[in-house]
Amino acid sequence: MEFMDGTWKKEVSSWEDIVNDQNLNRQALVEGAVHSIRNMGDVAFVILRRREGLFQTVLESGTGNVTVHELKEAMTVRMSGILREEERAPHGRELRIRQVEILSAPAEPLPLPIDKWKLNTSLEAKLNYRSVSLRNIKERAHFKIQEGLTRAFRDYLHGQGFTEIHTPKIGARGAEGGANMFRLSYFHKPAVLAQSPQFYKQMMVGVFDRVFETGPVFRAEKHNTKRHLNEYTSLDFEMGYIDSFEEIMAMETGFLQYAMRLLEKDYAKELEILKIELPDVSRIPSVRFDKAKQLVSEKYHRKIRNPFDLEPEEEALIGQYFKEEYDADFVFVTHYPSKKRPFYAMDDPQDSRYTLSFDLLFHGLEVTTGGQRIHDYRCLLEKLEARGMEQEGMEQYLDTFKHGMPPHGGLGIGLERLTMQLLGEDNVREACLFPRDMNRLEP
Amino acid sequence: MEFMDGTWKKEVSSWEDIVNDQNLNRQALVEGAVHSIRNMGDVAFVILRRREGLFQTVLESGTGNVTVHELKEAMTVRMSGILREEERAPHGRELRIRQVEILSAPAEPLPLPIDKWKLNTSLEAKLNYRSVSLRNIKERAHFKIQEGLTRAFRDYLHGQGFTEIHTPKIGARGAEGGANMFRLSYFHKPAVLAQSPQFYKQMMVGVFDRVFETGPVFRAEKHNTKRHLNEYTSLDFEMGYIDSFEEIMAMETGFLQYAMRLLEKDYAKELEILKIELPDVSRIPSVRFDKAKQLVSEKYHRKIRNPFDLEPEEEALIGQYFKEEYDADFVFVTHYPSKKRPFYAMDDPQDSRYTLSFDLLFHGLEVTTGGQRIHDYRCLLEKLEARGMEQEGMEQYLDTFKHGMPPHGGLGIGLERLTMQLLGEDNVREACLFPRDMNRLEP
Repeated sequence: MEFMDGTWKKEVSSWEDIVNDQNLNRQALVEGAVHSIRNMGDVAFVILRRREGLFQTVLESGTGNVTVHELKEAMTVRMSGILREEERAPHGRELRIRQVEILSAPAEPLPLPIDKWKLNTSLEAKLNYRSVSLRNIKERAHFKIQEGLTRAFRDYLHGQGFTEIHTPKIGARGAEGGANMFRLSYFHKPAVLAQSPQFYKQMMVGVFDRVFETGPVFRAEKHNTKRHLNEYTSLDFEMGYIDSFEEIMAMETGFLQYAMRLLEKDYAKELEILKIELPDVSRIPSVRFDKAKQLVSEKYHRKIRNPFDLEPEEEALIGQYFKEEYDADFVFVTHYPSKKRPFYAMDDPQDSRYTLSFDLLFHGLEVTTGGQRIHDYRCLLEKLEARGMEQEGMEQYLDTFKHGMPPHGGLGIGLERLTMQLLGEDNVREACLFPRDMNRLEP
Repeated sequence: MEFMDGTWKKEVSSWEDIVNDQNLNRQALVEGAVHSIRNMGDVAFVILRRREGLFQTVLESGTGNVTVHELKEAMTVRMSGILREEERAPHGRELRIRQVEILSAPAEPLPLPIDKWKLNTSLEAKLNYRSVSLRNIKERAHFKIQEGLTRAFRDYLHGQGFTEIHTPKIGARGAEGGANMFRLSYFHKPAVLAQSPQFYKQMMVGVFDRVFETGPVFRAEKHNTKRHLNEYTSLDFEMGYIDSFEEIMAMETGFLQYAMRLLEKDYAKELEILKIELPDVSRIPSVRFDKAKQLVSEKYHRKIRNPFDLEPEEEALIGQYFKEEYDADFVFVTHYPSKKRPFYAMDDPQDSRYTLSFDLLFHGLEVTTGGQRIHDYRCLLEKLEARGMEQEGMEQYLDTFKHGMPPHGGLGIGLERLTMQLLGEDNVREACLFPRDMNRLEP
């Protein structure tokens, strides 16, 4: 009988082996994809792409088992040779090729010049050829940064006593109500795709006190903008026993601080590739919704058209204001008007036209919505009634409150938007592997 | 201007404070939900439920600001008092209550006796009252174990150089084809929900070499069994530059070993609550599909009806065989018949009726399907043609291979099934917070 013991012996050199100075002038066996070939006549530089980065190999004519003409971009290869010091090569070394094993060969030339440092291609082309365009080193780096943000979110919250949950994406009804839901037939019953894990994460606060989820959400919003996706990844948390909705803002600030430290530590290479300067998150200003509108109106001579609404241009100006006045990249805008928030938002006891809620703006774009929720059963019923909403389909959500819930609140962060702002991109699609919008369902 | 700096001052005692011996005989302020009340006349024991566990508080009549009759199960409270040593209480201590602040009160009594150690309630009732039934300590512990498995999957793979990806759940076409897809209208275009991230994770192997995803998948399978969910969480990975499909099995074994260590270290409390004995994963036997059928047929005198299919009973018997003969909880079954695998599975060059693939059985139940994939464009086209399948809708997947891909393979683990088998439960719904099956779309 054969047994697997969790180990696997590979003869190929690891990245650590390759960049280890002790292995200079020694034999190495290196795998990778052929990223580019520069044929200089007597020698050819064959740059390999690996997950860790680019690596230079050199084919001297007449010394290997292949000629440069047999090699093609997008081949995957295993090469043996000697590691030599070479100042001008990345990592200060190169492999002098002795033997090449071709693992796979492309059937057609690449449709995009992915070996260019900056991929000067339209967004449309980048998205149409997604599995090719992301092989570009800078394009690929976007998603390592995104990975870092997700890791930071989970690691930080885990350290704060949160439990990770997985909630269903197919349900009988959405959390926010309204028309922005994708509908489907679920074994002949009407169903919708989750706009957010809102109801479920609240229900789980009564079980685990603090919960988080990182998963897809679906919004059938009928606008195609640079800021919207119809499917995106939401970083959600919900926490019980809060003293104030500001405790949620403190938790988010803690996450952002942790995230920036993690990026600095584990993603320095990608920060360098993308020339990202990390924002200062040591202290994030917080301003009331009405006050923010007033500040922006005064400074930028802009008339307040609707005191209970915030237009995208106003959001951008609030971002600009706090950058100019406080050198702040982020700003919390608090006390959103009640009519702009869902029924479960807790109204401010001081002034019920506003709620105990907030948005977080990052360079003038909303990346988070959060706040305290109603935890009292009767208050919830009153709010539903005041809004003329039906309890139908929400019985099991409401039952949770009937059977006792601690004061609680939480937030949802749009992962792609957070990534986009950190990257300094102006289209959220640059921060999504396979974006879904009104016109795009593929690849 | 107000600023958030990521800190939040709470006066309440943390769990670490409470269980710290240095704080015995000192004042403490404790929050939690009233899990149960035992009124003994002169004293009442009020057991609080917190995310960390249960905690005993004692109300002596006439000493606090409330009487026991004012307290109710499912209230959430903040209590101050003195921490006293008490051998018979959990953690060897209790809080002698001086002051109680009621944070919230339930509107109705609980529908289930969640304070019983074992919740003797039908599965149906547990699922109908999910936000209540999970407040039971044992029920809740299922999902801490599940969290540990997910954490282990991500942490282990991250350490092995994998990149986390988020792929779309709405698409134009499914990876496996066939009838088991939920269909929806996406802005008047036909769309389906992802049965697996298969196509996308393969496409990303050409970018990141190694990728993983933990997310929901959707299967419109028309059977209601104890082993099936119509929406479940899939732990997926895909890796390039493999020497053999067994390298994938080695990686999974490594993950399982890491997971068991993590559970032992961070989830000892839950393992104890649920009386779980962790399986031995130091070495996992591996047997060919045809050999496994033969062994089971011989030992259990069972006629082989179809040499190219494995019935659930046969799976269970294979599990039994390897338990009896090798004391093994897991077994890899390799070389599944080609006709039972999707078109992208790589056939065995030795015998094309079989594939370079495997399932992992845990106590006789399939918890993983994996294998090597076809990476050559022309081979893929031939396989599609041999199966009479159309390329339509797969152009962008196929383009990936046209433009070069390393030899690769991967797997998908059903998180709920893995959890269920570890828990020793006989229904997968016990390992899902909010299960979806043919008859259940709520809560």
